[in-house]
Amino acid sequence: MRKLLTGIAFAVLLPSSATAADTPRPVTPNDIVAAAPASDWVRIAPSDLLVMDLAADAKGGPRRVVIQLMPAPFSQGWVENIRKLVAARWYDGIAVVRVQDNYVVQWGDPDGEVPGKAKPLPKRLKVVPETAYIQRNHPKIGKYVWDNMGQRLAAREVTVTAFDRLNPPPDYGDPYWKTFGFVDGMPVAVALGGQPPSSGPIEISPQAAWPLHCYGMVGVGRNRSPDTGTGAELYAVIGTPPRQLDRNIGLVGRVIAGIENLSSLPRGTGNLGFYETAAERTPIVSVRMGDEVPGLPAYEYLSTDSASFAAYADKRANRKDDFYIQPAGGVDICNVPVPVRTVK
Amino acid sequence: MRKLLTGIAFAVLLPSSATAADTPRPVTPNDIVAAAPASDWVRIAPSDLLVMDLAADAKGGPRRVVIQLMPAPFSQGWVENIRKLVAARWYDGIAVVRVQDNYVVQWGDPDGEVPGKAKPLPKRLKVVPETAYIQRNHPKIGKYVWDNMGQRLAAREVTVTAFDRLNPPPDYGDPYWKTFGFVDGMPVAVALGGQPPSSGPIEISPQAAWPLHCYGMVGVGRNRSPDTGTGAELYAVIGTPPRQLDRNIGLVGRVIAGIENLSSLPRGTGNLGFYETAAERTPIVSVRMGDEVPGLPAYEYLSTDSASFAAYADKRANRKDDFYIQPAGGVDICNVPVPVRTVK
Repeated sequence: MRKLLTGIAFAVLLPSSATAADTPRPVTPNDIVAAAPASDWVRIAPSDLLVMDLAADAKGGPRRVVIQLMPAPFSQGWVENIRKLVAARWYDGIAVVRVQDNYVVQWGDPDGEVPGKAKPLPKRLKVVPETAYIQRNHPKIGKYVWDNMGQRLAAREVTVTAFDRLNPPPDYGDPYWKTFGFVDGMPVAVALGGQPPSSGPIEISPQAAWPLHCYGMVGVGRNRSPDTGTGAELYAVIGTPPRQLDRNIGLVGRVIAGIENLSSLPRGTGNLGFYETAAERTPIVSVRMGDEVPGLPAYEYLSTDSASFAAYADKRANRKDDFYIQPAGGVDICNVPVPVRTVK
Repeated sequence: MRKLLTGIAFAVLLPSSATAADTPRPVTPNDIVAAAPASDWVRIAPSDLLVMDLAADAKGGPRRVVIQLMPAPFSQGWVENIRKLVAARWYDGIAVVRVQDNYVVQWGDPDGEVPGKAKPLPKRLKVVPETAYIQRNHPKIGKYVWDNMGQRLAAREVTVTAFDRLNPPPDYGDPYWKTFGFVDGMPVAVALGGQPPSSGPIEISPQAAWPLHCYGMVGVGRNRSPDTGTGAELYAVIGTPPRQLDRNIGLVGRVIAGIENLSSLPRGTGNLGFYETAAERTPIVSVRMGDEVPGLPAYEYLSTDSASFAAYADKRANRKDDFYIQPAGGVDICNVPVPVRTVK
């Protein structure tokens, strides 16, 4: 299972046996995840996984990165292109070309912009319009409920589970947008069609939603506007969430396993973290859809519509276990990583 | 100079010559930094720098990390301990013991918790109280001015430059605290003694302030409360800002050079990202104060009280150069990295 964040402890943390025996250990976010019933976990269809195998590391060890593709209705034009690129084996033999610290790892055709040398793209890739950065008026992001405290959107009856009001003081929030939550395991912002009521639950139809640049999210490299990229050049976030890119670039998924094989690569010393020599690049041996990979484990994520996830997010916002003396009382949506596990 | 974040571009970005010749390039945050007058840069005293040399990398290349210690009034008990530990050469020969992806790199005595094997600490290290996580009622964080738009705190006349109101909609903000800014180059939250006025500038005396867990910030590993750590075990943030640690742990500085020598280390496979074998650890050859290191370049940061910094932060919140089609209209304080440069 994916490692969740926990407190800073010494290498060997040995609580006294008296403490361990006498005091029940306070509940942590990990405890909630571990106790979630099987029905709160969602199996990801292997056909919605990208399995990217990098060249072996210096010691010959395998380096696999598994990416969950963005579910509909978001970014589907680029996702369709990516499926075509995989089917054409186009990604096989390209490379990681850029690693910029506290920003992104990017992979693509090193000669993609060199006339006469660029690897030809498959035919009939879509040209995705800039309007696709934002998904408007789709039933999936249609209706949800603001509870009568104005503090949180109800989780049970809705598709979008939003956390903008997890923060008790009413003037806290997110610096980038007012309302946000999760759709099918992906962090999104939501533009509401109305304002929260002063009392009583009401239904609100959001006008639009868009995915967010949290750690591990995968996006589509592009040239200057109006270019939107094809999906042949991709990047993963490996630092402070670059939320200024939201609504400016297509997000097509998130890394659910093996992010360390990208985030621990040597940083490029060229402009924007590009590698300056071919030798520095990490070759990509192959990219396959999950259902093409024999022996791939089954991946599940904790349903972001589940009560377990709501409790987990709430606990992330209000840590009061034995390491924390001051609960934050709030949490950034990008600091609520969606738990993922493998199952046999 | 430290690399600042920029848009996602292809490996070779070649705008057409017509565009380059005919249209003035829009101003970017980097442009503002590059144009800042010399008077807006603050020289960091070498005696306030920690210079940590890791063992050479696999190719024999040097790996140096430079840390600016937290300026007064914050965290000075731990900072004094760190100065004593350097003077005693205590850090020489310890190691990086933990690298947890999207969280922290941690270094210390691998045997620190093993009875009979722990490296003895220098005498007379301070036991810092938990109250030191928050700095209360100090003149340096004493008074500043809320401008008459209620949008931003004025930068020129004040010590704390706050950005909580950079976000135009009044109900945006930070998930962790309502008001925040920078003190002497460090990101801090501020607990105000009053509320912003509806109109007209007024002075507000904050009651307290504390530094924030942004990328690259350095903190003090500790055991469970009421332990606060000595400074012998330190960590640096290498992922999503773990702001839930604010007010729960001492922050003693930030990495201003060489963060990639920490953030690109292999992740540990043990619990919490600890290395499972001694061979995986990266030895720390030496830690010295900057004024002990011959040939160290002079480091400067862009004064967080300067007009240049205010313009830079504003531009970070409102990117509208040729890559961005939709300015965010806001920015997380941890997404406003303080620019650093070296000078001869």
